[in-house]
Amino acid sequence: MTAPAPTAADRLLSVLAAYDHAHPALSLSDIGRRAGLSLTTAHRLVGALTRWGALERDESGVYHVGLRLWEIAALAPRGLALRQVAWPYLEDLFEATHENLQLAVRHGGEVVYIEWLAARSSVGVHIRVGARWPLHATGVGLALLAHGGAEFQEAYRTGPLASFTPYTITDPARLRRVLAEMRRTGVAVSDRQVTDDAVSVATPVHGRDGTVAAAVSVVVPYAGARVPTLVPAVRLAARGISRALGWRPDIPLTGEDGPPRGC
Amino acid sequence: MTAPAPTAADRLLSVLAAYDHAHPALSLSDIGRRAGLSLTTAHRLVGALTRWGALERDESGVYHVGLRLWEIAALAPRGLALRQVAWPYLEDLFEATHENLQLAVRHGGEVVYIEWLAARSSVGVHIRVGARWPLHATGVGLALLAHGGAEFQEAYRTGPLASFTPYTITDPARLRRVLAEMRRTGVAVSDRQVTDDAVSVATPVHGRDGTVAAAVSVVVPYAGARVPTLVPAVRLAARGISRALGWRPDIPLTGEDGPPRGC
Repeated sequence: MTAPAPTAADRLLSVLAAYDHAHPALSLSDIGRRAGLSLTTAHRLVGALTRWGALERDESGVYHVGLRLWEIAALAPRGLALRQVAWPYLEDLFEATHENLQLAVRHGGEVVYIEWLAARSSVGVHIRVGARWPLHATGVGLALLAHGGAEFQEAYRTGPLASFTPYTITDPARLRRVLAEMRRTGVAVSDRQVTDDAVSVATPVHGRDGTVAAAVSVVVPYAGARVPTLVPAVRLAARGISRALGWRPDIPLTGEDGPPRGC
Repeated sequence: MTAPAPTAADRLLSVLAAYDHAHPALSLSDIGRRAGLSLTTAHRLVGALTRWGALERDESGVYHVGLRLWEIAALAPRGLALRQVAWPYLEDLFEATHENLQLAVRHGGEVVYIEWLAARSSVGVHIRVGARWPLHATGVGLALLAHGGAEFQEAYRTGPLASFTPYTITDPARLRRVLAEMRRTGVAVSDRQVTDDAVSVATPVHGRDGTVAAAVSVVVPYAGARVPTLVPAVRLAARGISRALGWRPDIPLTGEDGPPRGC
């Protein structure tokens, strides 16, 4: 019986999908179990991936994600390429605020953090680059959700809204009001909705065609947070990144988000 | 005839390998041509990769590297994971110098840049994260080559040594002396060897077992470069990153480099 090639492709990708933040290092049997593959198949596919450089085997026999995969993934327009375009503006924002900064894009119902700069006065939020978080809890997530299109927003709002603190918005009607306010002011605030000691001030980044490509935020400790003083700096940084992506002030801003153009 | 599965794996990986810095966006026919696949096969494999999220198709029908691949690649110990560990030390070095900073690892005969922070006074060197460069020309490359093991060094020195400026070291005997000096002092200097207006001061980063895991450098304009004043700062940053990787001063430093432990 010939195995159809799409299945072979899917099996190979299932090996990569066995890796996540909780599982950055896997033995051959871990991979087989997590990918649902026989040990023989796992051995063969891991061999191909290792020869190519997508995986690397360390001296203890454990497999890590390899440098060659990282090099190719660095070309993702919504990953390092976006980060590279955004870097000078994040650097300036960091010099101006010395607070935690985040750059994120939307992937389905979650934000994916593309960049994260840590302040010395670290709040309880510890985000890894590549980490995900639900849209409705985070500042960047609210900024992205507010521009995610009416149909997507409706589906998201009426789905389950996970609660992380007593302040997390879990009421669909309240979320709708918050999103409308975000679109009116251009700024989203997550006030202790992820951890009860942190406030995030976020604003969207627009691409060449005016669509929302990403969001940038400053995260500060709740105690002593002066949100209004952070807003102009965050807006300025987001506008700078938007311009670097090819957006111009005469391009109308549109709600639907998409992949960034021009990076 | 049954197609052996390793070939299927190799074909899928050849689609990813079609992407590089000069080719970050490819049409289906570009992919087929660059990967040496028929259009039918390319179509099927690109479909599987797109469904999974390793590729993303934009509105113009062109395929980019996808966010999901980037998320998994972010787990590479020698990629974003190393960068995440190194970040506070690079940030401090940047605050102290406000110069171009680079963090790199060795992959075969090349350095791969994991992090790159740009100074305002930008010199002629423009490095992309994920970019490669030959070992013998760059400061980080010399630092990594000097600890690459005697056999590897011998093979590298006697191979072709590409020249980028009149100052690039292309003489194997001179390269041997430079590498010995690097090991003695712990510092590698690339003096106008990549571009004729830049000097790089680099030093190795050690992992938990004392092996060389990476190298960090400051790159400054040749005009007015005060190399001796940069050395302590670069050494301090490299030592900080080494400690964060689990190295301790009582662990003997060894020459052979390997993947970093403890990140």
